Amino acid sequence: MPDTTLRYFKQQLPGLAGGYKLDVPDCAVKLNQNENPWDWPQALKQEVFERVREVPWNRYPPFVPQEFVAKVARHLNAAPEQVLVGNGSNELLYAIFVSTLERGRKVVIPQPTFTVYKLLADLLGAEVVTDGLDDNLQYDAAALEKASQDASVVVLATPNNPTGSVIDPTDLEHLVFNSPALWVIDEAYFEFHGETALELTQTARNLVVLRTFSKALATAGLRFGAMVAHPEAAPVFAAAKLPYNLNVFTMAAVEVAMENAVSMKSRVEEVKRERERVARHLREYKGIKVFPSRANFLLFETSRDPRELWKAMVSRGVLVRDVSGYPRLGKALRVSIGRPEENDAFLKALEYAMTVVP
Amino acid sequence: MPDTTLRYFKQQLPGLAGGYKLDVPDCAVKLNQNENPWDWPQALKQEVFERVREVPWNRYPPFVPQEFVAKVARHLNAAPEQVLVGNGSNELLYAIFVSTLERGRKVVIPQPTFTVYKLLADLLGAEVVTDGLDDNLQYDAAALEKASQDASVVVLATPNNPTGSVIDPTDLEHLVFNSPALWVIDEAYFEFHGETALELTQTARNLVVLRTFSKALATAGLRFGAMVAHPEAAPVFAAAKLPYNLNVFTMAAVEVAMENAVSMKSRVEEVKRERERVARHLREYKGIKVFPSRANFLLFETSRDPRELWKAMVSRGVLVRDVSGYPRLGKALRVSIGRPEENDAFLKALEYAMTVVP
Repeated sequence: MPDTTLRYFKQQLPGLAGGYKLDVPDCAVKLNQNENPWDWPQALKQEVFERVREVPWNRYPPFVPQEFVAKVARHLNAAPEQVLVGNGSNELLYAIFVSTLERGRKVVIPQPTFTVYKLLADLLGAEVVTDGLDDNLQYDAAALEKASQDASVVVLATPNNPTGSVIDPTDLEHLVFNSPALWVIDEAYFEFHGETALELTQTARNLVVLRTFSKALATAGLRFGAMVAHPEAAPVFAAAKLPYNLNVFTMAAVEVAMENAVSMKSRVEEVKRERERVARHLREYKGIKVFPSRANFLLFETSRDPRELWKAMVSRGVLVRDVSGYPRLGKALRVSIGRPEENDAFLKALEYAMTVVP
Repeated sequence: MPDTTLRYFKQQLPGLAGGYKLDVPDCAVKLNQNENPWDWPQALKQEVFERVREVPWNRYPPFVPQEFVAKVARHLNAAPEQVLVGNGSNELLYAIFVSTLERGRKVVIPQPTFTVYKLLADLLGAEVVTDGLDDNLQYDAAALEKASQDASVVVLATPNNPTGSVIDPTDLEHLVFNSPALWVIDEAYFEFHGETALELTQTARNLVVLRTFSKALATAGLRFGAMVAHPEAAPVFAAAKLPYNLNVFTMAAVEVAMENAVSMKSRVEEVKRERERVARHLREYKGIKVFPSRANFLLFETSRDPRELWKAMVSRGVLVRDVSGYPRLGKALRVSIGRPEENDAFLKALEYAMTVVP
């Protein structure tokens, strides 16, 4: 063979070869992925099985699942022609990036944020600009406006992960209408925050809103997300999405989830109350700085070695996310808000960890 | 807004804005997507439900589903470190293309073949070369060797869709070992043919084999595919694949499918017998040319207007695929092999169509 160096790859991608990585020791209390801590009730699972039983598994799903998309659109409060659906919102972000990014193009991804954005942009060879968050990790509208002027795309998570910070809606509207870039607004944690840029998609052709069912809607195991764009832009993004991307089970489960979304709402309220309770406790701990959060997690910094704190908590059966490898977060950990007893276990484990880590 | 022309898109993609399209009138006999005509038995569906019932739906699937990948590897007869899994083999092809193609790079996609290959290559701005099939739509090794020399990637489906033709294994081995390109071999119809390039992936670093569960394994509705690459190449491709791409239901269903693959085998034999029976009948019809096929479908040409023939068959409740829009197939239709009574309905509908279409 003339070539043993894998030279058909665009880049050797040493840093990417493992892609997105996650360290997940087995712990009884799992507060590392911002999941909804309550599983689906058995009755709802059974309802999904009844629906999927009647569908032929040997046949492809409908080419365009129009009825399904219409139901998702109604749930999101958008028009069906604005909505695309995918296996998690990440799949849709991938389609957005392939539609807009390539070598020689620029994308603004304020850091720190969700790791996958930059991984995908790097794969396409785009130049990544990391400006946009101020010293307190809050969105800086002036910096964003400046960075966006020669960029093709700007990606903002609001609430942002892992900081919990949000962008001001007036700022966002101004930015979208005064920038030639495409603004991708990831609202994965929307339900815990309550504010959305969705209405803007009816007029702005350069705005996309991403939503997921993996967080508030307790469906991380089924991988479902949606995107909302202007009706003129949506079909172009659709061309970068694979046909038949959603399987028959996912669609049945998402329908059941939407029909029962009201009962999920009370869980969201409980998570928000718990978030404030945990934040209050953390603020009482000496040497801990807690960032304000509008999501279902809290970011906190300590003067201690975060990796050692993380390990000590793991030894007590509590798994949080060590985000100290993220840009600007060298001292930080992130904890997802779980069930009340799980949050108590976290507070206790952290208290213990601070006694053993100097 | 300064920009109403969607200028953030890399290209306006007029031809792509709809992406992959399919015309699917409702017909009792569905022979247009090369599906396995037999649905899963209810007992096997129930077995999947029992397994999925116990899994938490609110939690993400395992970060790397190692046990699952190991089972798929065993099923395919490959090593686990060679295998990546996805929502249909298309998702894996997308990752392969993102890893290897961009503007200024060349990909060989002999035409006619499965439409999605070229759609994805176009999205990435790659130059598509269509050489590689001779006048009888058979693979032409010399043409492939020539075209591959300055290409980054060559994509070959074997059996090819929609022609049914296959590449000679000795030719393929020579090509792979004498070309710097990455050879992507789509074996979607492997089970109906029996020959595979899989063993070569143990030594060739520039070869990827794609497999799907959508055809012989009767799982099109669940969207599952796998790819096998050299152990040194697989991790680089993995970096272009989204984390958590497979949901918990797909994995449970695929495990059940693999455990029951033996019982599927008799179905494959029946489809192969039916393919030869249908081909014999078609050859008796005046003015029809049938191409030899090693897959679960037949390509045939007539002197009549293929669209009119297609419509006449639809009016009789039989849906085949009109492939006359494909390059070099202006006179052709493709019929999937169904259950014996469906194949009889097709033969009768075609006989009728030829009496009404001049």
